[in-house]
Amino acid sequence: MCRWLAYSGSPILMKDVLYGGTNSLVDQSLHSRLGAEPTNGDGFGVGWYGASATPGVYRSIEPAWNDENLRELAGHISSPLFFTHIRAAIGSAVQQTNCHPFRHENWLFMHNGYINEFDTIKRDLILAVDPSLFPAIKGQADTEVLFYLALTFGLMDDPAVAIEQAVGLVEAIAERHDVPHPFQGTIATTDGKSIWAIRYSSERKSRSLFYTTDVPTLRRLYPERQLFQEVSDDARLIVSEPLGDVAGVWNEVPESCWGVIGPDHQEIRPFRPEAPATTIAVGS
Amino acid sequence: MCRWLAYSGSPILMKDVLYGGTNSLVDQSLHSRLGAEPTNGDGFGVGWYGASATPGVYRSIEPAWNDENLRELAGHISSPLFFTHIRAAIGSAVQQTNCHPFRHENWLFMHNGYINEFDTIKRDLILAVDPSLFPAIKGQADTEVLFYLALTFGLMDDPAVAIEQAVGLVEAIAERHDVPHPFQGTIATTDGKSIWAIRYSSERKSRSLFYTTDVPTLRRLYPERQLFQEVSDDARLIVSEPLGDVAGVWNEVPESCWGVIGPDHQEIRPFRPEAPATTIAVGS
Amino acid sequence: MCRWLAYSGSPILMKDVLYGGTNSLVDQSLHSRLGAEPTNGDGFGVGWYGASATPGVYRSIEPAWNDENLRELAGHISSPLFFTHIRAAIGSAVQQTNCHPFRHENWLFMHNGYINEFDTIKRDLILAVDPSLFPAIKGQADTEVLFYLALTFGLMDDPAVAIEQAVGLVEAIAERHDVPHPFQGTIATTDGKSIWAIRYSSERKSRSLFYTTDVPTLRRLYPERQLFQEVSDDARLIVSEPLGDVAGVWNEVPESCWGVIGPDHQEIRPFRPEAPATTIAVGS
Amino acid sequence: MCRWLAYSGSPILMKDVLYGGTNSLVDQSLHSRLGAEPTNGDGFGVGWYGASATPGVYRSIEPAWNDENLRELAGHISSPLFFTHIRAAIGSAVQQTNCHPFRHENWLFMHNGYINEFDTIKRDLILAVDPSLFPAIKGQADTEVLFYLALTFGLMDDPAVAIEQAVGLVEAIAERHDVPHPFQGTIATTDGKSIWAIRYSSERKSRSLFYTTDVPTLRRLYPERQLFQEVSDDARLIVSEPLGDVAGVWNEVPESCWGVIGPDHQEIRPFRPEAPATTIAVGS
Repeated sequence: MCRWLAYSGSPILMKDVLYGGTNSLVDQSLHSRLGAEPTNGDGFGVGWYGASATPGVYRSIEPAWNDENLRELAGHISSPLFFTHIRAAIGSAVQQTNCHPFRHENWLFMHNGYINEFDTIKRDLILAVDPSLFPAIKGQADTEVLFYLALTFGLMDDPAVAIEQAVGLVEAIAERHDVPHPFQGTIATTDGKSIWAIRYSSERKSRSLFYTTDVPTLRRLYPERQLFQEVSDDARLIVSEPLGDVAGVWNEVPESCWGVIGPDHQEIRPFRPEAPATTIAVGS
Repeated sequence: MCRWLAYSGSPILMKDVLYGGTNSLVDQSLHSRLGAEPTNGDGFGVGWYGASATPGVYRSIEPAWNDENLRELAGHISSPLFFTHIRAAIGSAVQQTNCHPFRHENWLFMHNGYINEFDTIKRDLILAVDPSLFPAIKGQADTEVLFYLALTFGLMDDPAVAIEQAVGLVEAIAERHDVPHPFQGTIATTDGKSIWAIRYSSERKSRSLFYTTDVPTLRRLYPERQLFQEVSDDARLIVSEPLGDVAGVWNEVPESCWGVIGPDHQEIRPFRPEAPATTIAVGS
Repeated sequence: MCRWLAYSGSPILMKDVLYGGTNSLVDQSLHSRLGAEPTNGDGFGVGWYGASATPGVYRSIEPAWNDENLRELAGHISSPLFFTHIRAAIGSAVQQTNCHPFRHENWLFMHNGYINEFDTIKRDLILAVDPSLFPAIKGQADTEVLFYLALTFGLMDDPAVAIEQAVGLVEAIAERHDVPHPFQGTIATTDGKSIWAIRYSSERKSRSLFYTTDVPTLRRLYPERQLFQEVSDDARLIVSEPLGDVAGVWNEVPESCWGVIGPDHQEIRPFRPEAPATTIAVGS
Repeated sequence: MCRWLAYSGSPILMKDVLYGGTNSLVDQSLHSRLGAEPTNGDGFGVGWYGASATPGVYRSIEPAWNDENLRELAGHISSPLFFTHIRAAIGSAVQQTNCHPFRHENWLFMHNGYINEFDTIKRDLILAVDPSLFPAIKGQADTEVLFYLALTFGLMDDPAVAIEQAVGLVEAIAERHDVPHPFQGTIATTDGKSIWAIRYSSERKSRSLFYTTDVPTLRRLYPERQLFQEVSDDARLIVSEPLGDVAGVWNEVPESCWGVIGPDHQEIRPFRPEAPATTIAVGS
């Protein structure tokens, strides 16, 4: 299990949402309230967009709470769209190549959750990755494989459908191996303009996922909050766990749904995994 | 705050007391029950005696719970006397040179606790260290300075008295700077033959400290326990927090006491800090 | 490219061959003479046999020359058979799971060299690994895949033949992808009793490989050398590069050969890669 | 010994001078041509100015050549003034707190060289640091102590004079301890607006130091060089070793001199160490 945060809006320093407050993401690395594990100390990562289309990524195997470099970067890098992720490893090694967010070209991808009994179905899953993408897999995390499956199924064209197919494939292959509850978690992915977020689990008891109320409303509710005054009207945070307990700020994404926030669209829809028929045959 | 463990007895693999059980030391690194902080994830260290008089020391800045190398070493190094320590940093950097146990020649030293407002009195304390020992200080931890003060005051000849003088000096210098409650904690030190352990705090609310019941009694109480059958009659564990909840195993060291276990002596006595008069003058 | 060393004989401290001398292995990490790269600073590893059948493994991503823990372990761990390896990464990430030696049950495996254009043929190679072994692959190094191919082909029963088949498969798959000079390097593997070493490259210009003259001869040549007096008659070092320039100590393994040293046998034979016919079909 | 680089001018990505070319700074980390050691693999650091007056600092103990995070940051952080430093440790531990550049408020400080027999005179030097600055020392590197001595002697008001006094104090204390050739090296310091650079050694055989020819001249000499076209007229690099062999680009700073480049002044003057008389008395 892990904790994550995604921001989109006018540029802010990453520290404005990573540190401080009563339940900041770095606080959650030491004692999360809603996570499956209270401690998320097995590395972390940040990915941010700036001057170039390709995001920068900083990943470390140290706990976020005592990484001096994270503190420096968060205090000096301002960005209109960034992902941050703190990890509680389950099974795969604590190493940078297993830390989220994962990047492919201009896309980022991160996940709180797991593929159940990953070792059992890993080989079949890897076989379904497009061979031209295969060498780009650099670690051994279940999430990285899921990312490359989604890329194989067209993430760059239609992220929600591609992730529905990737998760659907995980469920189909798991069924063949009698693996119960194959997928659990919340996912975020972005092309640097829009953010797609998914909340889903095969057993329909998904990890929590929240997004912020629109900024104009927040300003009316909390006129004294400096950050709300500074960010743009369209600014949003999507988080695995609320940062603090302020009433009216956080809204839960419903079970088995995906949503998107972007410059011209915001919506929430049902998430319906379905394996691409052809891929299962190839993987056999 | 930190957690620590000291073992003396017939040689055992370090893993026998570091892993497994319901509250093993590595478990405590993730969720300690009695510690001031539940998470002790800011590095760790082990020091062990073997073939040579000088102990080996392995220290790492990773959390103990996910350090693969610790798992390897603990499973392959057998020793008749070893120290292990997991760290929750307060103030000083997370780096190997600040990890316990500290070593000087054939001695090891570790500590759970702190010198209060160390920054305020650090310079005066360092001035009291024997200039010939001064270059051996390699980090910036309060405990390392305390160790070199104790060495200055004769740790190698009379550990209990030397630590009483070192803690006494801390209290005397703190008083001059109006620092309240200057010392807190439990200390263990060893020459590879005997182990001295101290429980003390200036405010008389000291961190916990326990030692095991003698092995023959443990064998009678728990004839099914393999480890109790294997270790020698004189084997002892001294810990900042019991490993597990088994009745009759753990005995608390009284407030403001020091004890020693060794090949030919075991005793517990009052701990009475007293600064060496001359040193305070030098430090002025 | 990398540098490695394997020792078998009466137990010695690892430091006796890792440090000191004019071209010790740790020296070679900073400035190798015969290596393809002078600096081998991308991590290292040691594997040693002791009390249990399964060897201990210590791996780190720090350069060997400044790893304090390696210095400690080398000075305190005595072993009758150990492998050490210093790495100069080519392509795959600098992370512990890519550091040699690799271990499977009681076997160790290490390599100086590379699989050419590994990214191009990696997928086909991984497909040829026994599915039951597949989840044990923890990193992304070419050598780890080679190790699991050799295990698939019976390394534990007949190491030389299994490695001939693994390298043969690499060459066969490389040919299908028009990859030139597919394999380069020297390999060592052990079950804790015997050591097998291979020197081979597809282009027949293999990295260097040396073994020591028998100890009784060395004692006659160098009666003043303490280490030669201390080790057993059957002690041997196998190295990618001589440690020092002493005449009569080092013998080169001929091109395209494998050798074995063990309690009851020592021989050198031609190394003749040949892919197992069935596996190529499976991998198609 | 180490290698360093300082840039001032219109904002550029750090990667433009850290990577690429025939002798880039990261190349020099693997095989420096002019350094006392060819390999500078004992950590590195970058410090850069951006939105806030206080610079960001990123330091790591990994070799610069294989640090993925450095590559990311250098490709995504654009700055008008930055320092980068690669380290070859002599004596003090490889840890972040010993990596350059060191920072105090809005100042950065870095050094290629050493204080000779630092252990012998360290205590006296530390005693001369202003007690109010003393707790800010976080590591054990000779350079950090030199920085805090210079801060004690007024670095923020008159950097050249303060460093002359700090180096002078080193020489005076070294003389009392019979330490020969006490100071060696080149230093750079900045307040975020101007850069001061010093080349000096007690034996007058100082490490090399170079600065770039003015940009308008470089543009005339090399009209095809993209970087020269892009940077502002006042852009300058100061380096311990030229990046590449292009004629007319690099000018050597004379022996025993200091220089400054800033928005309104550029000059080179003799460097004349002189200990502040009062401090020596205090340190006795």
